[in-house]
Amino acid sequence: MERYKVILAYDGTLFYGFQRQGQVRTVQLEVEAALRRLNWQGRTILSSGRTDSGVHAAGQVIAFDLEWHHSLQDLGRALNANLPEDVAVKSVELAPADFHPRYDAVSRCYHYQVLFAPERDPLQGRYTWRVWPPCEVESLQAAARLLHGTHDFAAFGTPPRPGGSTIRTVFQADWQPKDEAVLLFQVTGNAFLYHMVRRMVFLQVLVGQRRLSLEAFQDAVEKAAQLPPGLAPPQGLILKEVRYGDRAPVDRGRVTQE
Amino acid sequence: MERYKVILAYDGTLFYGFQRQGQVRTVQLEVEAALRRLNWQGRTILSSGRTDSGVHAAGQVIAFDLEWHHSLQDLGRALNANLPEDVAVKSVELAPADFHPRYDAVSRCYHYQVLFAPERDPLQGRYTWRVWPPCEVESLQAAARLLHGTHDFAAFGTPPRPGGSTIRTVFQADWQPKDEAVLLFQVTGNAFLYHMVRRMVFLQVLVGQRRLSLEAFQDAVEKAAQLPPGLAPPQGLILKEVRYGDRAPVDRGRVTQE
Repeated sequence: MERYKVILAYDGTLFYGFQRQGQVRTVQLEVEAALRRLNWQGRTILSSGRTDSGVHAAGQVIAFDLEWHHSLQDLGRALNANLPEDVAVKSVELAPADFHPRYDAVSRCYHYQVLFAPERDPLQGRYTWRVWPPCEVESLQAAARLLHGTHDFAAFGTPPRPGGSTIRTVFQADWQPKDEAVLLFQVTGNAFLYHMVRRMVFLQVLVGQRRLSLEAFQDAVEKAAQLPPGLAPPQGLILKEVRYGDRAPVDRGRVTQE
Repeated sequence: MERYKVILAYDGTLFYGFQRQGQVRTVQLEVEAALRRLNWQGRTILSSGRTDSGVHAAGQVIAFDLEWHHSLQDLGRALNANLPEDVAVKSVELAPADFHPRYDAVSRCYHYQVLFAPERDPLQGRYTWRVWPPCEVESLQAAARLLHGTHDFAAFGTPPRPGGSTIRTVFQADWQPKDEAVLLFQVTGNAFLYHMVRRMVFLQVLVGQRRLSLEAFQDAVEKAAQLPPGLAPPQGLILKEVRYGDRAPVDRGRVTQE
């Protein structure tokens, strides 16, 4: 029996989020079903954290223990053969027996795509939030800079456990043009509160549209001041990457599926 | 009653192509249903050409005659309000009474996206063809250059009418990287045979994978020599733009919806 670390990609559109909830269609349910077809006996897989209904992932990390007598590449292929079209294994590697994708993570990176257009675009709707009127890019950039550092992000989300800390560290946050109409918000932090990225995007867009002052946004970041409610919708959000520290890697192999 | 020229975008995934075929879900059926809700009395809309089941469009052009007493912008909005999520009006303008989006077109531009990856990617599958092993980019470029000019493209598709000419002119054809894993084929021509772009892509990929010689490809372009059958799948293809000549425009207004 070995512990495996697997990177997953999924299109969240048709999932009720990552986490198993009875028999509704979630990513965890599908992955566990695929593993059982490989004779997995476990009760639950571990993950870097749940993603909400409709949120996508290019780099979700999961771990599980499995008796497997073939190559890592074969394990990836066998899982992909048993997974539906909208979820796929990107890489498989061996991990230490106590590796935990949530507790061992040192940073997470999310991307959020905003389409600025007065009418909907059928070719963009699946992976963007459409916003109109457009934002001043300089205001978005100014707001993003305020997010950097360690703050009490209570105005941006709720902790995973009631009463838990709302202090988080943002290592990097900025807005970049992706094409003429789409801006990409990239944010990396040690960890995120529930709904934190979507709330960050929503409030920055309010600032960019001059519906919220940069000063009020700054007070929310620096003094945890309350702000109007609201969230950016899920389909713009992608869990891009989860990073782990330099704990001695298990150097018995790693296979990238793509 | 005026003739309107409208640019449409659609995600072809859930359509049985553009052209009305009884009651199966096609783009034409949806657009005509939306127009009827605006009291359109016509029998059929005109289009620049059909697109196949699963093919997308960012710039399909249609035309119809309508009695409309509000602004062009209002017409676009009213249509979008009556269209489903996967099709949308991008712009509306007045056209000469005899404007025909197919016969008046002087060029069409298509894009085709190829993802080079050993395993499927759920976030790319909707708009790309996944190919593995990868292609030599230089071979793709060399093949694309051969397409330029006026040729008998009989090896690449069939004419709209049985017995019609298979001679077409390609103004521009090349491959550009879109990101690390995706190459974009862009092709512009005066007109295209049925399946011509998907056949071009399929055969170029064979050349790029060294499964077909550049010489055989060249013979197909220059001498209409027969080649192995096969088509690139529809979901990688987007009808990007249709252009019209310099006939005196009807300068009574134009409104871009996005």
